[in-house]
Amino acid sequence: MEGFSEEQTLSLVAQIQDWQHVRSQTESSVFSYPVGVSCFPTALPRAKFQQALEIQEIYNRLYCSVAEDEQWIHDAIRDIISVEPLAAALWSIYEAAKETGHIQKISVGIFRSDYMLHLNEGAEPQSPNAVFETSLKQVEMNTFSCSGGSHANKVGDMHRYLARTGIYNVNDASLDIASLPVNKNIESLASCLALAHTTYGGPRSQEARQTAVLMIVQPNNFNTADERPIEYALWNREDPVPTYRLEFGPDILEHTWLTENRELLFQPPWLASKTPVEISVVYLRAGYEAEEYNHVGWEARLQLENSVAIKCPSLLAHITTFKKVQQALAAPGALEKFLSGSDAAKIRETFVPVYPLDESEQGLFARKLACDPEKSLNYILKPSLEGGGHNVYGTEIPDYLASIPQERWYSYILMERIQPPIQTNILMGPAALDSGQTVSELGILGCCLWQSQSDQTSEHRCKMLHNSVGGWTFKTKFAEVDEMSVVKGYGHFDTPRLMDP
Amino acid sequence: MEGFSEEQTLSLVAQIQDWQHVRSQTESSVFSYPVGVSCFPTALPRAKFQQALEIQEIYNRLYCSVAEDEQWIHDAIRDIISVEPLAAALWSIYEAAKETGHIQKISVGIFRSDYMLHLNEGAEPQSPNAVFETSLKQVEMNTFSCSGGSHANKVGDMHRYLARTGIYNVNDASLDIASLPVNKNIESLASCLALAHTTYGGPRSQEARQTAVLMIVQPNNFNTADERPIEYALWNREDPVPTYRLEFGPDILEHTWLTENRELLFQPPWLASKTPVEISVVYLRAGYEAEEYNHVGWEARLQLENSVAIKCPSLLAHITTFKKVQQALAAPGALEKFLSGSDAAKIRETFVPVYPLDESEQGLFARKLACDPEKSLNYILKPSLEGGGHNVYGTEIPDYLASIPQERWYSYILMERIQPPIQTNILMGPAALDSGQTVSELGILGCCLWQSQSDQTSEHRCKMLHNSVGGWTFKTKFAEVDEMSVVKGYGHFDTPRLMDP
Repeated sequence: MEGFSEEQTLSLVAQIQDWQHVRSQTESSVFSYPVGVSCFPTALPRAKFQQALEIQEIYNRLYCSVAEDEQWIHDAIRDIISVEPLAAALWSIYEAAKETGHIQKISVGIFRSDYMLHLNEGAEPQSPNAVFETSLKQVEMNTFSCSGGSHANKVGDMHRYLARTGIYNVNDASLDIASLPVNKNIESLASCLALAHTTYGGPRSQEARQTAVLMIVQPNNFNTADERPIEYALWNREDPVPTYRLEFGPDILEHTWLTENRELLFQPPWLASKTPVEISVVYLRAGYEAEEYNHVGWEARLQLENSVAIKCPSLLAHITTFKKVQQALAAPGALEKFLSGSDAAKIRETFVPVYPLDESEQGLFARKLACDPEKSLNYILKPSLEGGGHNVYGTEIPDYLASIPQERWYSYILMERIQPPIQTNILMGPAALDSGQTVSELGILGCCLWQSQSDQTSEHRCKMLHNSVGGWTFKTKFAEVDEMSVVKGYGHFDTPRLMDP
Repeated sequence: MEGFSEEQTLSLVAQIQDWQHVRSQTESSVFSYPVGVSCFPTALPRAKFQQALEIQEIYNRLYCSVAEDEQWIHDAIRDIISVEPLAAALWSIYEAAKETGHIQKISVGIFRSDYMLHLNEGAEPQSPNAVFETSLKQVEMNTFSCSGGSHANKVGDMHRYLARTGIYNVNDASLDIASLPVNKNIESLASCLALAHTTYGGPRSQEARQTAVLMIVQPNNFNTADERPIEYALWNREDPVPTYRLEFGPDILEHTWLTENRELLFQPPWLASKTPVEISVVYLRAGYEAEEYNHVGWEARLQLENSVAIKCPSLLAHITTFKKVQQALAAPGALEKFLSGSDAAKIRETFVPVYPLDESEQGLFARKLACDPEKSLNYILKPSLEGGGHNVYGTEIPDYLASIPQERWYSYILMERIQPPIQTNILMGPAALDSGQTVSELGILGCCLWQSQSDQTSEHRCKMLHNSVGGWTFKTKFAEVDEMSVVKGYGHFDTPRLMDP
């Protein structure tokens, strides 16, 4: 880094290696490796950070309202239900649950809205001031199984510690610790789940001894280091909230069951006590991949959805995480159905053009763009899947589309590519330590609790019981890499250094 | 474990693996491995735990007083200075420093007194009540570079978390969380160093920009996981205490220097600012092995000792960690030199017979015991070195003594072997997971700040400015292993389960 000596860098790296808390567990063994982190905090305009925080409560309200509008959601994803296995699975579970009848009107949401800075027309990506010649644009909205909160919290603590030691000071320019925002993700996510737990109240079933939160996780989960701190925080509260883990799939059917009144009872197999606990909140950190919904996975999710437990999130809220929903909300007038004009404007300001690839007017226009080797350069083709893993970028789009049957085009959206400012950093992953040009992504965590009022008209279908900002995640990757996946080693947790022009 | 199912055990192990905070760093890489821990808290009589806590302040006062009595210490270790390289090095540095003249009258002590339960005459080691048919006996007193505090703190948090989840409940017997004492080692060790830092006051040198604690550590230190939390706690205090690490040896001479008034100035090479910091407190976590005192190490330690910085601990306090001092204090009347009759009685109650191997009457008696293949069975031969690594046990003593020149016998003490009650546990180390018969060792951390009044008579040479219990460590090993070393994988961090008869 500029003005940073070899010696300074080596010491910085050694100190980061000592910061144990960012270790993450490998699948098969107790040995662990560090989560990728940036050696230096990355500059971010204070005003953009504030803007992202301020609109999160609007985003929360928007998605909770959408989650209560079955018809609107169905219209948005109708085209992909037939071609997208995950959409098909979730919708069929929703319909089966609807038949049984929803008996829990309250839902919890732990959302994460991801943003990048988008350069203004004509701004020079690598100029020192580039970050200030930008606007805040949303990459995607995640409403299901949002991860990274604990890592971001701990890496934020790490960068603040390093800043205190003065190691980031170059010449006489010192990094003001106040420019690194405090991150309380772990505490606020736990508080949100605790609030839902309290809202549920005491055991309703005679059989149960107590109520508890049930965290549904993936088998051979590599990311326990991100999930566990939330459990520890729940158990360690002044008024402890019992929290248990259970793997998605057969374990759910084996160890949980519904009472006549559809209370969800759970018998932790590893506990001696044979009195079951009654689940107050189902916190889903698994079930976001089509492969998980084989016959057993399907039945398991249905059993959870049918229960009176508060779901984090409900099935419809889960479905709103699909890119098709993001695209439908970008359509003219869509936001105004759920938000006031001024709120809608604040949200739309963060949108980049997103198009369907269907046969609507917009869709046909987008197909032209996507199939044009030159025009496609500025776009990303995104399937309606979790995460960015399956995106197709720029010039690769035409060939890719040509390689798949047209019926599958429906499941994709075409999104204009965000042009972020380029910065430099040293990124430290489990395997490699490299310096280079980087781009960053800001995620804002939203925590909300809402009540369905499906009897009401659409404007009043969703009653917000709680709506707050949980905290943030900040990830940085090398500019030449397309994906931001931390799991794959591309993304590195970072802390924004808030700057004014 | 009794009444504990396979399923319960597997889940317990998996949950412990997820408890990241007990990871420790390997020498050469960022990859890490877990510190050895016990799967179950180990029973300890509440009364014995209380006794150990209550007498710690007396032990602190005793060793601070001894540390101010040069003549007494010299008498105690005279015989080994010629044969024991570490003793020779430390004493010669002390004398060199004395020539220059001590200008800092205040010292800090972070001590650890280690105990085991010793079975009463005729008690059955493996009976369920064996732990109650015991008395508390001191294994050794550590006054230098005491480790394990952070690990013990975190493992204590782990066992308390696990207890909350109910996993330790067997049938209808539930483990009361209140029986697992809260451990605040990290906070209290940091507070003790912060107090010394404050007592030192602001910079005295015009050159320095601020005062800071300097932690002296070993190169390629595997135990950063035990040291770092104390640094983080110091930096994270409401009134942050700057704390820097420096390796014992050449780095000290290269990066620190004394001013005319012997302020110790330090220029962290990894910081851009070229204004040095003035060291308020030197916290030594290295320098406990003879090998470290080559010419450079000798000069380095002398420079630290010559400075006006407050040492944790002073050289004489360091020397009191020698087994010869423990043995000398066990001699009739020795304790009464430093303590009131009632305090001396409380301390002596925790002693087992300890003998010199010199040519005194006691020494000759001990030589008879040590050279007798049968009598030696109940004894341990201990050199005046840190830790238990070099002990010789029972029947091996006669042959060992025969194998070394008689002059070297002086550096050893002969200690009656403690006969601990046998318990069972599952111990989980970096490599192995085994169940079996175990024995445990309780360490009580003492934190003190004292002022030398060398002008006074022996009774009043030491003025205690602060005297408190810092917390505890609790280690468990398989009964058939002699050593308790965690580094070597024998000792496992544990949490006492306080029980009443």
